[in-house]
Amino acid sequence: MRTPPRTLCHHLTTATPGTTVTLEGWVHRRRELARVTFLVLRDRSGLAQVVLPAGTPVPPEETTVRVTGTATANEQAPGGVEVTDATVEALTEPAATPPAELWRPALDVSLPTLLDHAPVLWRHPAQRARWELAAASLRGFRATLDGLGFTEVATPKLVASATESGANVFPVDYFGRPAYLAQSPQFHKQQLVGVFERVYEVGPVFRAEPHDTVRHLAEYRSLDVELGFIRDHHDVLAVLREVLAGMVEAIRAQGSAVERTGAVVPDVPERIPVIHFADALRLVGAPADEPDLAPEHERALGAWALAEHGSDFVAVEGYPMAKRPFYTHPWTGAGRRRSASEAEAPEGSNSFDLLFRGLELVTGGQRLHRESEYDAAIRARGEDPADYASYLQAFRHGMPPHGGFAIGLERWVARLVEAANVREVTLFPRDLHRLTP
Amino acid sequence: MRTPPRTLCHHLTTATPGTTVTLEGWVHRRRELARVTFLVLRDRSGLAQVVLPAGTPVPPEETTVRVTGTATANEQAPGGVEVTDATVEALTEPAATPPAELWRPALDVSLPTLLDHAPVLWRHPAQRARWELAAASLRGFRATLDGLGFTEVATPKLVASATESGANVFPVDYFGRPAYLAQSPQFHKQQLVGVFERVYEVGPVFRAEPHDTVRHLAEYRSLDVELGFIRDHHDVLAVLREVLAGMVEAIRAQGSAVERTGAVVPDVPERIPVIHFADALRLVGAPADEPDLAPEHERALGAWALAEHGSDFVAVEGYPMAKRPFYTHPWTGAGRRRSASEAEAPEGSNSFDLLFRGLELVTGGQRLHRESEYDAAIRARGEDPADYASYLQAFRHGMPPHGGFAIGLERWVARLVEAANVREVTLFPRDLHRLTP
Repeated sequence: MRTPPRTLCHHLTTATPGTTVTLEGWVHRRRELARVTFLVLRDRSGLAQVVLPAGTPVPPEETTVRVTGTATANEQAPGGVEVTDATVEALTEPAATPPAELWRPALDVSLPTLLDHAPVLWRHPAQRARWELAAASLRGFRATLDGLGFTEVATPKLVASATESGANVFPVDYFGRPAYLAQSPQFHKQQLVGVFERVYEVGPVFRAEPHDTVRHLAEYRSLDVELGFIRDHHDVLAVLREVLAGMVEAIRAQGSAVERTGAVVPDVPERIPVIHFADALRLVGAPADEPDLAPEHERALGAWALAEHGSDFVAVEGYPMAKRPFYTHPWTGAGRRRSASEAEAPEGSNSFDLLFRGLELVTGGQRLHRESEYDAAIRARGEDPADYASYLQAFRHGMPPHGGFAIGLERWVARLVEAANVREVTLFPRDLHRLTP
Repeated sequence: MRTPPRTLCHHLTTATPGTTVTLEGWVHRRRELARVTFLVLRDRSGLAQVVLPAGTPVPPEETTVRVTGTATANEQAPGGVEVTDATVEALTEPAATPPAELWRPALDVSLPTLLDHAPVLWRHPAQRARWELAAASLRGFRATLDGLGFTEVATPKLVASATESGANVFPVDYFGRPAYLAQSPQFHKQQLVGVFERVYEVGPVFRAEPHDTVRHLAEYRSLDVELGFIRDHHDVLAVLREVLAGMVEAIRAQGSAVERTGAVVPDVPERIPVIHFADALRLVGAPADEPDLAPEHERALGAWALAEHGSDFVAVEGYPMAKRPFYTHPWTGAGRRRSASEAEAPEGSNSFDLLFRGLELVTGGQRLHRESEYDAAIRARGEDPADYASYLQAFRHGMPPHGGFAIGLERWVARLVEAANVREVTLFPRDLHRLTP
């Protein structure tokens, strides 16, 4: 005999008082008082209160149970309805005591404890909400791009050579031959612009980062976009703006999760403020020949964008070519000629970083699109274009001007919920020291 | 100065005759006749015809161009509108001659040629359409599950030990320590049922398959689903039915791609026919102690489902435990007791395979959910539960009855478009012999 249909906790509020309901979930909390025993049940939708006669045995916290009882109005119960006259059936053996009390409003554990016990501690409603924002972001990302004529693609994670540089790649024993884990889908997404014009991919990327920092992971989720027939990197930025707006919209639709994380959801301005790299250096008081922005510069630029433009986002364009990968398109901005004082400034590029609240979130820009340019750029690195033959096929056979960007999902969520460490918002982080759980 | 807005080829039909339009795309074909030159332009949306005076130089096929001209009604042009009085501006150097004539209706190349020149040959409209069906399938998969209260998750692809068995894993040099590429998200998706109840993931899985067959890849896209609070595997099958219906619906919405591939899109019946493994063996005339279905048995069952139930799909349930992974739940079907003749039949399981047109497409079922069951199952394999400590955490701390399934994206599309080899529908396949392009 099949059991009666299940009522989710958050639907209990709409149950007709007096009707029999069946709920299933985890024992979130049991409170045995002198005259009554409370069982707070947790399922994916929320919590519900079950009232039992004093002395009723209730399985320990985190045991999964089926509760059948009567929906009863009670102003003091969460949602105004509780379950009375209930029977509680455990679905497993009694659960072991969890590594932290999940029913407390805040999950107050050290980072190592959180990571060691991830399968259990992610059950805490406030912790779970962090990932719900990540999932909403993915939904918004894809919905926006689907609406703009992009095609989702899947590029190989096993590659014959390091994608962008020989450093920081994980070697794989591939049927006895050497292979590597892809550091990014860059080469393949560009090739697929030749097929679909506009592509995106959400997938794992792998960096053998020897750095043990709060913002680096050995494996993370990259939200990759690439599009053809652009004029320059401003067309790429315009798509990025739409994508961010779509992600934010999807997050806003998850009101409960936003509330549980305490995230302050940003507004995405109609036009994201853009500042040239040289101007950015000047603004933050850095020397004009500085090749990159230091974290304190990024923070200062974030503060400037908020003060000057009321924006949590700012794009820095025109990064020096020397700090950008070889496929980067040189600067073509007619509006920015070198002044006398910039004579020694390094050559700029049609690329950008997007800072979110003073932290680098996105890297993007226009790429080279002519075979001859690739040939020259690869030779300039002292390498042989023949080693890039399969990548360069696309360019030999006609590619449009194109560009794209990549958003790091974990960095986005971390900044959104103000997590100090990107590991706090990653379900099962992988880093220099960690391969489990 | 910014160039005028671009008109996509398939929007040209709605352009007001006499207005100036700018199109961008690839030279799909050039035909130089005595009195006129035709340029057929290809972009992501389709094709458009450009009429030029005889002798006008047109870049070779596959060169990217910008065409500016007058939209002109012509019944004989595709879509009834062509571009006349046009100027053609090449966006790159002339493209090299492609490895096949992409303008021909069918892409008639050998499999090695297709795979070696994937970045270029996927541009063929009929070939590209195959992936468009894959992308639509992903959209339908996610939309269905989002609507059913599932949360998208991202599980690590770098793991400390082989997921399900020691065989067929790729070893990775992980900061000097051994690691492996995940063969499936199985362990992690189960753990996340403890957090979100209902989860799905689309991601790469890695199998060091030493088999060189038409249906195996070393890296493929797995559409993984797992859900809690089920009664048995029939609840899993019910979700699978919804997912398939959603995928088919999304594919039907891609009319042009369906047409270009010639795919016969299946109807998903309200209830997918289910046959017990023992009955399936009897039906195909196989011995009752056979532990698995051979490909010819699958084909016969596919034919039976079509003839008896008018269904392209059939689920075979109750596979012998011996052929299923250790976390499989034993058979609980009250309706199926062992008859005298089945006394020697092996112990069945609450698991199933779904055949699509006679080929295995999905494997799924109910999993064990009690810690004690895992303990016993792991010891029965001669292994130590301590080696599974991080996985077993979830079960120690309370898990619901649960189950799930995994669909192989490439197999699905291959069967849909009747591709003989799964490599024909994979953008950049990886196998025993192939790591590029």
